[in-house]
Amino acid sequence: MKKILLIPDSFKGTMSSTEICSIMEERIRAYYPDAEVISIPVADGGEGSVDSFLAAVGGKRVAVTVKGPYMQDIEAFYGVIDNGSTAVIEMAACAGLPLVGENRQAHKTTTYGVGQLMAHAAISGCKRMIVGLGGSATNDLGAGAAAALGVCFADKDGNEFVPVGENLSQIAHIDTSRLLPELKNIEIITMCDIDNPLYGKNGAAYVFAPQKGADPAMVEYLDAQLKAGAEVIRSQLGTDIAQLAGAGAAGGMGGGMVAFFGSRLQMGIETVLDTVGFDSLLQGADLVFTGEGKIDDQSLRGKVVIGVARRTKKVGVPLIAVVGDIGDHIEAAYSEGVSAVFSINRVAVDFSEAKKRSKSDMALTIDNLMRFIKSMNF
Amino acid sequence: MKKILLIPDSFKGTMSSTEICSIMEERIRAYYPDAEVISIPVADGGEGSVDSFLAAVGGKRVAVTVKGPYMQDIEAFYGVIDNGSTAVIEMAACAGLPLVGENRQAHKTTTYGVGQLMAHAAISGCKRMIVGLGGSATNDLGAGAAAALGVCFADKDGNEFVPVGENLSQIAHIDTSRLLPELKNIEIITMCDIDNPLYGKNGAAYVFAPQKGADPAMVEYLDAQLKAGAEVIRSQLGTDIAQLAGAGAAGGMGGGMVAFFGSRLQMGIETVLDTVGFDSLLQGADLVFTGEGKIDDQSLRGKVVIGVARRTKKVGVPLIAVVGDIGDHIEAAYSEGVSAVFSINRVAVDFSEAKKRSKSDMALTIDNLMRFIKSMNF
Repeated sequence: MKKILLIPDSFKGTMSSTEICSIMEERIRAYYPDAEVISIPVADGGEGSVDSFLAAVGGKRVAVTVKGPYMQDIEAFYGVIDNGSTAVIEMAACAGLPLVGENRQAHKTTTYGVGQLMAHAAISGCKRMIVGLGGSATNDLGAGAAAALGVCFADKDGNEFVPVGENLSQIAHIDTSRLLPELKNIEIITMCDIDNPLYGKNGAAYVFAPQKGADPAMVEYLDAQLKAGAEVIRSQLGTDIAQLAGAGAAGGMGGGMVAFFGSRLQMGIETVLDTVGFDSLLQGADLVFTGEGKIDDQSLRGKVVIGVARRTKKVGVPLIAVVGDIGDHIEAAYSEGVSAVFSINRVAVDFSEAKKRSKSDMALTIDNLMRFIKSMNF
Repeated sequence: MKKILLIPDSFKGTMSSTEICSIMEERIRAYYPDAEVISIPVADGGEGSVDSFLAAVGGKRVAVTVKGPYMQDIEAFYGVIDNGSTAVIEMAACAGLPLVGENRQAHKTTTYGVGQLMAHAAISGCKRMIVGLGGSATNDLGAGAAAALGVCFADKDGNEFVPVGENLSQIAHIDTSRLLPELKNIEIITMCDIDNPLYGKNGAAYVFAPQKGADPAMVEYLDAQLKAGAEVIRSQLGTDIAQLAGAGAAGGMGGGMVAFFGSRLQMGIETVLDTVGFDSLLQGADLVFTGEGKIDDQSLRGKVVIGVARRTKKVGVPLIAVVGDIGDHIEAAYSEGVSAVFSINRVAVDFSEAKKRSKSDMALTIDNLMRFIKSMNF
C-alpha cells in the first residue's frame, strides 16, 4: 500500500465528505504511516461545495459583498482554484435557505447575489466557472442572477424589473444583449445532482417549494409561474427548457443557467473528478475508498460511488465502497467497477440508534479493513 | 487462494454451523472454483454435535436402544470417528429437552441412557470418548449415567437406587468398584461450553432448571439436592466439585463426569480443533473463516472465534471472523489473532428484522469479501 485515494460522498444527516475523509485517513495511517493518502471531499453543488474543492485541490476563498435572498447586503464568497483560472461558486452562499431563517417566502427571494458572485469572478479573469446549485431559498428560475449579469427583463409595457418567483409570468421581453462581456469566453459548468424538470408534479415548485415556505396554493401558483417563464424563454431566446432534466434544480435555476448563460448541467461527481484530475491521481494508486449513505438501485444514476467506479474500472484499481446501508440488488454496482461494499453497520439496531454511532462505526470499519489488508500482506 | 478453511460457530437462533459452512463454501467456489475448501462445522456439545463431527472428519453413526429421560426405551445414537478409535456422544440424544416435550420435570429425569451409550461405545472398543453436554432435560448430577456404568448408589439403610434430581440428598454410599472395566483405559473428554458452578445462584438449578420445568420452589429444592450430592461425593469419593467451573453444565452432569469417571471438562472448540487435526489442516492454508452470532468481551472466554484465532496466529494464516453483531471493545480479538471482523448486518434494522435475512446476508457478505479478495489479486 503506497498510494490510497479517498473520495467518499457525504452520509446525509450524519457525516460530511470532509469528515469521512478525515476519519478514513487517520485509520489508514495507523497501519500504513508512509503511504500517500489523497483526500478528495466530494462537493455536490450545495452548501460546503466551495470548501470541498479548496480542500481537494487547494486555492483561495474570495469574500464579496452581494445581495442576499431579500436584496439585503450580505457577505458572501466564492473559491478560486487552478491558479485563478477556475472559479467555484455555491449559490447557497447568498441564496441559501439558512440565510432566510424562518422567513421562508419562495415567491419573493432572489438569486441576484449569485449573478454578482459570477460577475466578480468573471471580471477577476477566470476562464472557467463552476456554479453549484443546491440548498436554495429561491424559486426565481435564476432570473435574479441573470439580471445581475446584465440580462434585462421587461413586462408587456416595457417596464424593466428583476423577476422573482411570484412574477415570472409578467416577463414579456428578455434582452441578453447587455450581458456582461467578460462572461462570453468563460466555460460555465452548473453542478446539479438532481434531474427534476422545471415544472409539473416532479418540478421545482411541487417537489422543493414546500421546504422553502410555500403552502399548497402557493406551490400551484409558483408552478404556473415557472411554466410561464419557460414559455417566454422559448419565445424570446429560442431555448426550450420545459423538459430539460435538472432544469428544476434550485428553484428553476438549473433551467435558467442553460437558458441565460448557455451553461451545461453536470452531475457533481463528474465535475469533481474532472476538476481534481482524478484520472491522473489514479496512476499508481493501490486502492480507492469511496462511499455514500446508502448504496442501492438509485446509486446507479450518476451518484458518487458509480461515478468513481467507472474511472477505477478502466485502469483496474480496486475500489472499496464503505456505506451506511446496503440495499438489495447492488449487482450492477459490482459490474460498474466496485470491487467490494462494506457497511458500517456493526449491530442490528435501527437508524435512529445507528446514526449516533456513525463516526465511531466508520473509524472501526476502516480500521478493520486496514487490519485485514495488512494481514493479507499488501 | 488455493486452500481455505471454514470453522464457524452457529449463529444461535438463526443458522447452524453446518448451514453457515455450506453458504460460505458456495460463495467461495463462485470465485475460486479450484480452491480446496475444508468445512469444519463446530460442535458445542449440544444437539447436533455428533453430526458436526461426522461432517468434519467422516465416520459412522451407531444406533442403540437405551433409556430415555423417563426410563422409557428410545432409539438413540452416537458417532464413531478416527477408524473406530474415538466415540462421540451427545447427551441430548437420550436425555435432551426435546425428548420430554411439554412434560418437563427436571427433578424426575435421568441421564441413565447416556451411561448406556458410553457403555456401548466402550465395549465396542473405542480408546477415546467425547461426551457432549448441552440441551439436557435433567438435573441428576450425572448419577443416572454413572449407575448405568456400574456405579452403585445406596441410601443410609443400604438400599440401592438410581438417583434423580429430587433424591440426590438420599445418597449415603457410593461404590465405584463395579464400574464397567472397559472404561478404565479410555480417555473421556467432556465437552461443555459453559462454566457455571454446580450449585448456588449461578449453578445448574438456578440458571437452567426453570427452562426444564422447575418453578421457583423446585429450583431451590433442586439446588439443595445438588449441594447435598456434592457433599456425599466429596466424603465418599474424595473429589470436590463444589466450586468446579463447568460442574453445573447439563444439570450437574459436568460435575458428575469429573467425579465418577475422572473425565476432564473441555471447551467444545478445543475438542473440535484437536479432533479434526486443525493444526495439520492449517498447513498451506491461505485464509480461514470463522464466525459467531456476536463477537464481544464474552467471546474471549473460550469461544470459537478466539479458540481458532490462537491457532491461526501461531502460523500466521489470516483469519476472518464473520459475525452478526460486533460488540464494543473487541481489540482483544485482534490481539488474539483475528485479522478482521465483518458483520453481516447490511441495513440498520433491529434483530427481529435482521434474523429473517441472516442467510441471505451471510451469502452476500461472503460474496462481497471474495470479490474484494479477488480484486486484490490473491
